[in-house]
Formats: sequence, C-alpha cells, structure tokens
Amino acid sequence: MGIPETLRWDGDRLVLIDQTRLPADVHWVACETPEQVAEAIRGMVVRGAPAIGVAAAWGMALAARGARGHGRDAALARLREAASTLVAARPTAVNLAWAVAALLAHAEGTPGDGAALAEALTAEARRLHDADVATNRAIGQAGRAVVPDGANVLTHCNAGALATAGYGTAVGVLRAAHEAGRRLHVWVDETRPYWQGARLTAWELVQLGIPATLITDSMAAHFMARGAVDLVVVGADRIAANGDTANKIGTYGLAVLAAAHAIPLYVAAPRSTFDASVASGAGIPIEERPEAELTHVAGRRLAAEGVGVANPGFDVTPAHLIAGIITEVGVLTPPYGPAIQAALAARSPSYSAT
Amino acid sequence: MGIPETLRWDGDRLVLIDQTRLPADVHWVACETPEQVAEAIRGMVVRGAPAIGVAAAWGMALAARGARGHGRDAALARLREAASTLVAARPTAVNLAWAVAALLAHAEGTPGDGAALAEALTAEARRLHDADVATNRAIGQAGRAVVPDGANVLTHCNAGALATAGYGTAVGVLRAAHEAGRRLHVWVDETRPYWQGARLTAWELVQLGIPATLITDSMAAHFMARGAVDLVVVGADRIAANGDTANKIGTYGLAVLAAAHAIPLYVAAPRSTFDASVASGAGIPIEERPEAELTHVAGRRLAAEGVGVANPGFDVTPAHLIAGIITEVGVLTPPYGPAIQAALAARSPSYSAT
Repeated sequence: MGIPETLRWDGDRLVLIDQTRLPADVHWVACETPEQVAEAIRGMVVRGAPAIGVAAAWGMALAARGARGHGRDAALARLREAASTLVAARPTAVNLAWAVAALLAHAEGTPGDGAALAEALTAEARRLHDADVATNRAIGQAGRAVVPDGANVLTHCNAGALATAGYGTAVGVLRAAHEAGRRLHVWVDETRPYWQGARLTAWELVQLGIPATLITDSMAAHFMARGAVDLVVVGADRIAANGDTANKIGTYGLAVLAAAHAIPLYVAAPRSTFDASVASGAGIPIEERPEAELTHVAGRRLAAEGVGVANPGFDVTPAHLIAGIITEVGVLTPPYGPAIQAALAARSPSYSAT
Repeated sequence: MGIPETLRWDGDRLVLIDQTRLPADVHWVACETPEQVAEAIRGMVVRGAPAIGVAAAWGMALAARGARGHGRDAALARLREAASTLVAARPTAVNLAWAVAALLAHAEGTPGDGAALAEALTAEARRLHDADVATNRAIGQAGRAVVPDGANVLTHCNAGALATAGYGTAVGVLRAAHEAGRRLHVWVDETRPYWQGARLTAWELVQLGIPATLITDSMAAHFMARGAVDLVVVGADRIAANGDTANKIGTYGLAVLAAAHAIPLYVAAPRSTFDASVASGAGIPIEERPEAELTHVAGRRLAAEGVGVANPGFDVTPAHLIAGIITEVGVLTPPYGPAIQAALAARSPSYSAT
C-alpha cells in the first residue's frame, strides 16, 4: 500500500482522507460546500499547513460552483463569505489565508458571471493543488543536501505527504535523500496531543521504506545527549519576515535542545508559509485547542477532574535557532530578513509536475 | 476524598492501590508473597522510587513470614531468593535495592529461627514505611524555602504521595510550601508514555487544593519562554556520587530547557536515592520498557505497524544542571560530591511521624 492521496477532486466534490482516523481506518470524507471544507479543517480531518491551503482553495472553487447560476456580484459576495468562513477555521497556518486570498483575487481578476467564475476557480484550485506537489518535490531536491549519508534525523509532527497535496515538506526532504540513495534513520516524535508523529509520520516512513523509530516527545533530549541525532528537520505553519517560525507545539523545545547539543535544525516549507506582513514571531496568533485533547484518551477521561488545561497548538522558534529554511527556491540561511525577501521575489523553479 | 494510601499492611498482607488504573478506578491489589510484590512492581501497580522501596521491604517481610516454620538457615535462604526476585523487578530506582539490602542485613543481624526473623522483618518493614513518610515531611520542610510566594512551578512525572509511602518528595515540597500559606501554581507535564502527570500528579494537586494546569511534555519550553515558569521541581530514581540524577524520561530535556531559560531545577529525594557506589550517571542502568506503551493507547494500536520503538523509562540529568538536591537533611548544593558524602554521614532529622 502506498500513501493515499491527502485530498482529491472528483469532478464535483473535494474528497479528503480522514486524518483523525489514520492509520487504523482509511476513511474518506466528501465536501460539497466551503462550509464543509472549513469544518473538515477545523476538525483536523485535513491538517498540515500546505494541505489546508490546498483544501481551502478547493473550498473557494466549491463556493464559486455553488454560485454558478448567479450574476457576477452575487457570486463574488458568496466567495467573500466563503473566504471568511475558511480563513476563520484555523488561525496559525498562513497558507490557509494565502490560498483563500489567491483564489479571491483570481475571481476578482476574472471577467464574467457566476458560471465563468466557477470555471476559473476550479482551474485555479487545480493549479494550486498541482503546484503544491511540484513545490514539495523542489523542496526535497533543494534540501536533500543537508542530509548526509548515514544520518540520524529527528522529526516532529507530520510534515509529510499527508500534510500537503503530496510528497511532503520535511518528510519530502528525507524522501528525496532516500531516493538519492542515502542511508537514513529517522527518530519520530509521537507528537502529543494529536499523535501526528505516531499515527501519520511513522506510517508514511514505513510505506516509504525509510527506517524509523518512534519515541515520545520527551525522549528527544536523551537521544541527542547520546549522539544519536545528527540533525532535526521540521515543517512550518507560518514564518515571519525575520525567520521566526511557528510550527507544531514542541518544535521550540526541540530547537533549544538541538542548539544545546550543537545539532542543526532545519525548517522545510513552501514560500506560501512566509508571512511578510508579520515582522516577528510575536505577531503570529497561536491557536488554543480543546482541553479534551489532553484530558481524554480514546474517548475516556484520563486526567483528574478539576485540573486546569493549557493546549496551545503551536509555538514559535526564534530565527537564531534555525540553521536553514528549505524552500522550493533553495535553502535560506541567516540573516533571514533579506533571504526571505529575495526568496519571495525569485521566479518559481521550473519543474515537471510528475 | 483525600489521596488514598499508596500501600498498607493489613496484618498479613501488603495491600497496594493499583496505580495503573488511577484516577478513574480506585482498585486495591493484595500481595501475600514477595513474588506477587515483585510482579506488582514490574507491572507498575506500585511505582515511584520510594514507594517501590517500601513495597520491597514488605515483600521481604512476607518472605520471612512465609518461612516462619523453618529453621534459621532455610529462612535466610528464602530471604536471599526473595531479595533477588525483588531487586530484579526494576533496574533503575536504587531505593528498591537499598530497602531489600537493609531488610536482608537486618535478618542476618537478628538471632533466632524463622519465627524470630518473621517478627523482626515485619517490624523493620513497618519502621521503613513510617520513616519514609517522616522523611518526606522533612524533605518538604527543607525544600519549601526554594518555592517563593506566587511561584509557577513545573513538575514532571509523579513524585507525590503515590510515589512514596505518603506525602511525596517533589510534590511534598510544593505541599509544604502550600501548607505554609504560599500561593502556588503548578504546571503538570502529562508524562508520556505512562501518564503519571496527567493521572496521578494532577489528581493529587486537585485533592490538595493547589492550582494546577496540565500540559503535554512538549509544551514546557513554550511556557518557559513566556516567563510562566519560575522553577522546576522533580523527584529522582537514583543519584550517583557526583550528583548526576536518573529520573523519569524527559527530566534531562527539562533540565536543559530550564538552564537555557535561567530557571532553577531542583531534585527532591530521600537519601536512600543516593548510590555512592556509582561514580556518575554513566553507571546507572536505564530500564527499557515495553514497546506497547508507545504503539498502543487504551488497548488499541495507534502507531503504524512496522515502525521501530525506543522506550527508555529514565534519563540522566548531569549534576551541573541541578540547582539543588532537596533531602531530609537539607538542600544540597554544588559541589555535590562532598555534599552527598556529608548528607549520607549526617544524623537523621528528629521529627514526629504525624
């Protein structure tokens, strides 16, 4: 069995693999409206910054298709409404807002009535979807140089095929190194509270034939101290103009631990993850997730009644703890301010979307 | 409801609260042989370095009582057999070996036949049991000075009443500060893979009326960076002659993170946790626990089939990352080598075992 597609367009509907049930159950969820897409994003049926960006693009296409019979003004009004709903689904990953804004701008720049907008947005969502896979392959090509032969690599959360339209960002880098014949071993943090490492990354690596060892998040430092970690590669949900990076909770701790053990930490992310409007990590909103993710396990209460709970979904790693940011236009290195500006201005790499 | 007794002697049997089922189910397990006690220790029905020391002492008493009808030599042979079984139950916490050795030495120093040894070892186990509670109260008295009024304290795993014969070590310090009228808030790491924080420490703190917030292990760094952690207090399973400290997996990472944020980390432990025969942390054996603790949750497989698993139960925090070791004879500070020697030579504090 290969890794199933994270999301696919079946001609009329967006079909998502339900990531809350993987790997035990392979179950598909169909969305016919942008509201259903927003609900799937909120409920983490689809997760991962690039993947929710592509899902939201399809959500905008669904909104346009639902307004096919309307005139231009009514169709645009419906698109603006869908855009707010989609953007509000999750606050931290900027790819979501980026994709929604791109589709809305595409609609505004397209002449014609509802039918014309529906056709244009369906094509544009398809383009973004395919571009995400191609971008990830380019990230892999750019990043594989940081993975030496025989490396022990630690990763956190899931920045793999399932976090994207396909191939993966951080896992894409490992995959590209593996495809280039390098020997690898990957330490997979289980990634509490949502188990993306145990459930998704471990599964992807097994499918890819890359040797992997599952550990709890709290074990990373122990293996670093034993010299068993050569580098850390993670994804990102939003990168500020100065390189400060929001990613899954636990990333910041790993970055501090990596620095203390002189281990480089790389961030792998498409340029759609950069938010030039935010000067530093202090400006990135951090989503607070439901308490039940900590108090309950498998539907049963585990924690004592009456205890408080904090559940930030993300943390911010300051730029100075990041050895490089691997993008589709190359590996950025400090100082990140100008490097990010240059990357955003660069032409996209030429690639074949195979 | 108060915190139930971790273990009690009912005149003939050792009765343990089953810590694998707390706090959802309050269930008691009776042990009538040292082999049953060893099994309860191995299966973590009773856990926590001081608690397994006291349980093992009662295990030796049970062995002696089982050999009541025998002559001296046969009774001593039975005690030596029980001692090996008990010591083999878990390798890292030294209190277990310490208590077993103390009871065996007590038997060897007691004249008489099996009946005399049974009587002597029952009394000695009782004495160790009561001394553990008194020791913890003394640790609390000694340690409360490190907890300022209004402090936000982070703790890991469970070093509370349930990890001891009563009162607790690290939680005992917080408890003593709370009883002295200091305002506190405690961050409770959930402590994967066995959830001692979520299940046991959170429960104890709720019972004690100490405000507490549950977080995943991966969130500690995030709250440290926000200035929301003033100090870290943890227990210990074994402390080498130089102060290097083995404790629940994740402690070393917290110590590195605390140092990076200029937050002091204290270890609270009775002197029975010191192992003067081990020069440094490198000599402490680290228990490898079953893979299922990571791959399965609530009896259901969560992780992908085919992924490797590492599950060290403990890690070693080097002495230089420890601000102080809180014992029943005071707070030890660096250099730990001479401080530990002096502490081991000191008279026990006078206390009333109330």
